Amino acid sequence: MDFPDRLAAAVAAAGSPLCVGLDPRVEHGDDTLDFCLAITEATAPYAAAFKPNLAFFECRGAAGWADLEALCGAIRATGRLLVLDGKRGDIGSTADRYAESLFDTLAGDAATVAPYMGTDSIAPFLTRAGRCAFVLVATSNPGASDLQTLDVDGEPLYRHTARMAAAAGAGAAGTVGFVVGGTRPALLRELREEHPHVPFLVPGVGAQGGSTDEVVAANAGGPMLVNASRSILYASEGPDFAAAAGRAAAQLSEELAA
Amino acid sequence: MDFPDRLAAAVAAAGSPLCVGLDPRVEHGDDTLDFCLAITEATAPYAAAFKPNLAFFECRGAAGWADLEALCGAIRATGRLLVLDGKRGDIGSTADRYAESLFDTLAGDAATVAPYMGTDSIAPFLTRAGRCAFVLVATSNPGASDLQTLDVDGEPLYRHTARMAAAAGAGAAGTVGFVVGGTRPALLRELREEHPHVPFLVPGVGAQGGSTDEVVAANAGGPMLVNASRSILYASEGPDFAAAAGRAAAQLSEELAA
Repeated sequence: MDFPDRLAAAVAAAGSPLCVGLDPRVEHGDDTLDFCLAITEATAPYAAAFKPNLAFFECRGAAGWADLEALCGAIRATGRLLVLDGKRGDIGSTADRYAESLFDTLAGDAATVAPYMGTDSIAPFLTRAGRCAFVLVATSNPGASDLQTLDVDGEPLYRHTARMAAAAGAGAAGTVGFVVGGTRPALLRELREEHPHVPFLVPGVGAQGGSTDEVVAANAGGPMLVNASRSILYASEGPDFAAAAGRAAAQLSEELAA
Repeated sequence: MDFPDRLAAAVAAAGSPLCVGLDPRVEHGDDTLDFCLAITEATAPYAAAFKPNLAFFECRGAAGWADLEALCGAIRATGRLLVLDGKRGDIGSTADRYAESLFDTLAGDAATVAPYMGTDSIAPFLTRAGRCAFVLVATSNPGASDLQTLDVDGEPLYRHTARMAAAAGAGAAGTVGFVVGGTRPALLRELREEHPHVPFLVPGVGAQGGSTDEVVAANAGGPMLVNASRSILYASEGPDFAAAAGRAAAQLSEELAA
């Protein structure tokens, strides 16, 4: 199966395109793995995918990386998709190593990839059937307006980035996706119209303020994962955090399915 | 001391701006650390800095990350600068964690940073006095022409990226540098003219084909590190690899000092 088919199956199994982002606060320290495993277990019924954020593990060094490996194993065991969020990108020979790390060593189903270095920095992530590289196209943070919306030939840069990424994956069906922030639905709609079959990974709903209704409408039924992190992970600060995360995931899942 | 002063001191101590890139082939396996330590010891007399490439360690998982930690300790013990090449970049709260990983956990003096997500993805790398974020501006790979040279208001995108990065660091002296490929000296010269005091990290000489004479001339005496990786690491494929690396580093160092 190519990645869009696998995505459709995962969304059908979960009943919604919810992706649970695992960005555990550093204060968890040596309890980070246990925290993430509890969140994964509580939210798996409602999640099509899980997205560990590599920064939050690698800031704890080799011990954090070992936790990441264990967490990836547990996520794969749920049968949901594993999206590795590291935003890697480098010259071809180095990108080969990142792809090996993300798709082979950690066995991710998808990974986020940075586009600034161009086609040869993306291509090494497109060589594995059934896997997907979500290329940063239009992000949800304030700095998105610094480069991404600069005018190039009458269009914002992000549209050129999207076309470059789509072209890089043209020979390998379903291996390219886009990261498109959920805070600006008009922009999501515009990218969806031009790229109806490209999987989108949409961060920025929940804590970052994007509206689920507007995101779903703008996406117009295309292949999509909608990520939420903090609004689920920290739905409760108390010992009932896992149960609260499950309830938050269930509610968001329902909103996204509606 | 701010980073440009530290860079000047390291260049003076080594007698040249040579940076030895540590991109060890995966075939070294469990011998990766020993290989890198031997290269570091043999080339330290001629190198102002060492630049481990994170991809080549993280593709070996937690064991590779432990090797990276040990290597960083050995590089710091040489008194040369430690440049961590991971090209990280993400929203502010995640970039905080990457900065912590690179500058605190691994205690790097500098790190490479990707610019596509804008100012708030760069700012967290600019908060530590004496450290430096080398932001990708104009890279040496073929894909550099996909986005970096697109025309924005009559100038290539990379000039806008450079200004954005310089502005992000304006309040924190010497914390921003640029990655500028050595394969197109005219471009290096143009960026140097506009940014005379910004440290440049220049890859692309040696195996990638850039000319040392042209790079030195184009740089016009500005603060700079010139990176070479494969031409030093694999100067010999035999058991004399460390001695051969030392000779290759000595020769390149002399060319760069001339």
